[in-house]
Amino acid sequence: MTTGSGTAPAHPAETTPAAARPARRGAYRRLSVEERRAQLISAALGLFAHRAPEDVSLDDVATAAGASRPLVYRYFPGGKQQLYEAALRTAADELELCFAEPRSGPVTVRLSQALDRYLAFVAERDTGFSALLQGGSVAETSRTNAIVDEVRRAAADQILLHLEVAEPGPRLRMMVRTWITAVEAASLMWLDEGKQPPMAELRDWLIDHFVTLLAATGASDPQTARVLRAALAIEPAEGQAGALARRLMPVLGDASHLL
Amino acid sequence: MTTGSGTAPAHPAETTPAAARPARRGAYRRLSVEERRAQLISAALGLFAHRAPEDVSLDDVATAAGASRPLVYRYFPGGKQQLYEAALRTAADELELCFAEPRSGPVTVRLSQALDRYLAFVAERDTGFSALLQGGSVAETSRTNAIVDEVRRAAADQILLHLEVAEPGPRLRMMVRTWITAVEAASLMWLDEGKQPPMAELRDWLIDHFVTLLAATGASDPQTARVLRAALAIEPAEGQAGALARRLMPVLGDASHLL
Repeated sequence: MTTGSGTAPAHPAETTPAAARPARRGAYRRLSVEERRAQLISAALGLFAHRAPEDVSLDDVATAAGASRPLVYRYFPGGKQQLYEAALRTAADELELCFAEPRSGPVTVRLSQALDRYLAFVAERDTGFSALLQGGSVAETSRTNAIVDEVRRAAADQILLHLEVAEPGPRLRMMVRTWITAVEAASLMWLDEGKQPPMAELRDWLIDHFVTLLAATGASDPQTARVLRAALAIEPAEGQAGALARRLMPVLGDASHLL
Repeated sequence: MTTGSGTAPAHPAETTPAAARPARRGAYRRLSVEERRAQLISAALGLFAHRAPEDVSLDDVATAAGASRPLVYRYFPGGKQQLYEAALRTAADELELCFAEPRSGPVTVRLSQALDRYLAFVAERDTGFSALLQGGSVAETSRTNAIVDEVRRAAADQILLHLEVAEPGPRLRMMVRTWITAVEAASLMWLDEGKQPPMAELRDWLIDHFVTLLAATGASDPQTARVLRAALAIEPAEGQAGALARRLMPVLGDASHLL
């Protein structure tokens, strides 16, 4: 029906993971090596969403994926550690996709769209997100830290790209990376608090945090001040930066003795 | 000279760590159990300041402390893991002391003094600070995470105390905890960057960050807005909040279309 000989292979595709076979149709459609691998990782990520990695066995993954334990071991001969790293790698790649956003329009709108995707990812992964970020005792910390750090770096690069900064100075870089850590920490707290406040409220707060942190940094760093000026210039009054500015006025109004 | 019989003990004090002996003077002054333990932990912390915990052996600690390897093992029969946890515990206790600050005067001044102590601690521990925070592969993550989380909680409690908030709502709590994570992340970056910018500059930026994050949060949370108003009311114009407000004016001046 699909393969060269026209007959079913003597051995299931899974016994020869080195050779990727074309996918076949029908009730007995066998998965290609890549598809099977992706399916096992997806099953593992599904389990990590409700349990800590150390509480997920390869048996559990096999059951969830409708596969045999030996098959799971054939794909991940390094066992739990290898499966965990592969899952983290996959999650990291998905996470990096969240940050991709066209470079047009007000920065707060772009940030809002990227944060919506990021928070949806966090909400879906839930416990698994915490576990992936924190490594857990199952994983070798330095290797998993490297994967997570790569995502943080990718996020920082994206933000600097949107701020139109080709050569960020140390203060601006530190500001952006600090905000990314804050976003991460806030997401973990948000999961801990049963996803309260509502996602849109958390997102808006994170954007307000970004804008005010740009201001705090711009107050003593000329490059950041230029970036902030350029960003605010294209923010519309009815947008989020405008709403923030108007909401801040009464709060700061009482502090005119400081000026 | 010191003990009941008036003669030197047949065995060195270190062979009976269960019984704390009074310290003795002279060239051969023996350490009490607690002193010896503290000395070994201090030697370990000194080594962690320059090397990752996994690269520090009990032999190294013995050499640094001028003690024998068997002695180190008598005090830490659990080996490296136990020594590491004891060192982390000691560092955590020292760190918590940094936060103690009288509850009077402008909040930015109190924060400034606590941050000076904290950053001095970070600078002194250097590599060890990163290692302690990140656990490293030598330690069981969940136990060391619990110790580090306790320090974060203590810091948050202190800040809420200084803000005179008896019952912080979820938004204010999230704000304070987010800022603490940001401080931690910024300290690690600061160490990575060879302690640049200068410590006082980093401290002032962290305070500006705190004030603007209070404002960003107060813009949509009434409790935080009240806290911010009360805090700004006692800030003097010549203080840091005043300096921040005046430096922000020209940066934000171009954004009047948002109001």
